[in-house]
Amino acid sequence: MNISVLGTGSFGTSLAMVLTDNKHDVKMYGRNEAVVEEINESHTNLHYLKDVDLPAALRATSDLTAAVDHADLLVIAVPVKAVRGLTKDIHRILLEKNKKVLIVHVAKGLELDSYLRVSEVIEQETTPETVEDICVLSGPSHAEEVALKSPTTVSTASLHNKGVTTIQDVFMSKYFRVYVNEDLVGVEIGGALKNIIALAVGTLHGLQFGDNAKAAIITRGLQEIARLGTKMGADPLTFLGLTGMGDLIVTATSRHSRNFRCGIMLAEGLSLTEAEARMGMVVEGVNTTRAAYELSESHGVEMPITKVLHQYLFDDISKDEAFYKLMMREKTSETIGLKELLNEQYRDWSNQ
Amino acid sequence: MNISVLGTGSFGTSLAMVLTDNKHDVKMYGRNEAVVEEINESHTNLHYLKDVDLPAALRATSDLTAAVDHADLLVIAVPVKAVRGLTKDIHRILLEKNKKVLIVHVAKGLELDSYLRVSEVIEQETTPETVEDICVLSGPSHAEEVALKSPTTVSTASLHNKGVTTIQDVFMSKYFRVYVNEDLVGVEIGGALKNIIALAVGTLHGLQFGDNAKAAIITRGLQEIARLGTKMGADPLTFLGLTGMGDLIVTATSRHSRNFRCGIMLAEGLSLTEAEARMGMVVEGVNTTRAAYELSESHGVEMPITKVLHQYLFDDISKDEAFYKLMMREKTSETIGLKELLNEQYRDWSNQ
Repeated sequence: MNISVLGTGSFGTSLAMVLTDNKHDVKMYGRNEAVVEEINESHTNLHYLKDVDLPAALRATSDLTAAVDHADLLVIAVPVKAVRGLTKDIHRILLEKNKKVLIVHVAKGLELDSYLRVSEVIEQETTPETVEDICVLSGPSHAEEVALKSPTTVSTASLHNKGVTTIQDVFMSKYFRVYVNEDLVGVEIGGALKNIIALAVGTLHGLQFGDNAKAAIITRGLQEIARLGTKMGADPLTFLGLTGMGDLIVTATSRHSRNFRCGIMLAEGLSLTEAEARMGMVVEGVNTTRAAYELSESHGVEMPITKVLHQYLFDDISKDEAFYKLMMREKTSETIGLKELLNEQYRDWSNQ
Repeated sequence: MNISVLGTGSFGTSLAMVLTDNKHDVKMYGRNEAVVEEINESHTNLHYLKDVDLPAALRATSDLTAAVDHADLLVIAVPVKAVRGLTKDIHRILLEKNKKVLIVHVAKGLELDSYLRVSEVIEQETTPETVEDICVLSGPSHAEEVALKSPTTVSTASLHNKGVTTIQDVFMSKYFRVYVNEDLVGVEIGGALKNIIALAVGTLHGLQFGDNAKAAIITRGLQEIARLGTKMGADPLTFLGLTGMGDLIVTATSRHSRNFRCGIMLAEGLSLTEAEARMGMVVEGVNTTRAAYELSESHGVEMPITKVLHQYLFDDISKDEAFYKLMMREKTSETIGLKELLNEQYRDWSNQ
């Protein structure tokens, strides 16, 4: 299949390697000429994937029209905030060329201000004439490990349930396992909101909290993600799967995770701006915290971890106060709060 | 309150420290005279808790009658296989003294051969005349961190729902948070079965699998625990809580975990006997794997990770074959299998 991967970050690059391994004709697109040249000339992308050799067959371009023209499948692998602009450009080119493609995105976050999921943003900027289906690929998948062909499992879901089998077929390999999931909302929300918890856990780690405390916050974190996600239309059980719990664990317990590392820097006293500058990559959790906080308010969902992190990032409460409060809050019984939601949801289902 | 902690292992010792901190009159009981003497003379228990000073007020005895006589609350903190014998002795002493106590246990496993939960074993060996209620205390709580007063959250549940408030009151402190849970079966099953997954993840770690693979196995592991637990009468949502997901994460991602470390040794080629000898502590996951495997067969519940680990531990399949199979098994959609169970359960609830 002819495939273009739009975005030359670490995950996009590792997916382009998987697809090239699977004998597809893959082109990468990036705006940064130096990175494009490095991929084509040196077969490396050292800023994003240290010590990794790219296949020689993998070519990059900084010409979006050429990339779109090349492909029947577009893999959108840019930061969330760049998705809308890129999609507008893609759509214009597709109209010009009178062409229809399948789109899969791998961006994990919610759009700032609109609080939309990424597939919703793409849907707004395209039409059924240009795009056959809009899919998401998500799960516990550090790019560094994918690039090293370390066994990885992910899920795919889509808007119209038409493209998922193609996505599964083109990506599936011995070391990269793709499962189909029917819950687009749950898959996207899990992938987006886990970054908030990873930031919080990284901060706890930096403040010398132990594994017991971190496990408790990860557990409560998944519960609050699931509460909001269910209100937004997700199946609560999706949060028990690869794109919920699986991705949360890998993001919140691994030093590969940039959100986790950003949290550590914040704990060390760096400002948000300083931490993001030192990372040299986008830290999706920061904007997602803002979006999730606003959504929790408007949906009336209790999200204590998101709320504390939001206060800490954007208001003026001290980190010690914030996180000590978080661990110590008074509470006498372990209420998951999903029980009521599940009850509703599964009662509805059993009545169908 | 007068409390005796029965067992001088790492978790029992750290809980005795919490209780002493909370100004209770705490006695520890252990069969090992040298450890008892070390606790009383040097105020340490170095084999189990390196670099930790015990409070001087904490006293130990090797006289079980004295320990039972001292207490209104007994904390059973011995390995699962020792629970039945110890409980028989306790019961005999209580009858002799015409005394009634509250019992809480912290053992994480299932009894070999009977496959009973620990509270069931205690119930079988006592009567309502001698024991007011049988409770469990469980959650993500490495003893090493509890001893250092690192923030820790656990849950308590009980057979008759009479003793949980007392348990919460006596253990609760600034750094040790106790939540009440109504699901005794779910709390005990989560604590017991997570050791299986920790062993499996430790083995994967030793075989150089990456974080992506480990997160996938932890995720699937919780799902299979929840499937079996629900069949055994647990509320599936308990597995999303501290004693399910929380404890699984801390056990399967931390080097403090003896089951995780045992898995690493197995991957390095040590036999089960060698690994257990080198640990110098009981590795509950090994016997629990056997019990859970038998239960999964008798309940007709699919538990692929438990099955592979069982084959690897007790049959003669190679580790590479076992774990490669585990990661690579063919599967096209991410079915959690809990959906049906939840549907049943929550339909029942909504009809009540």
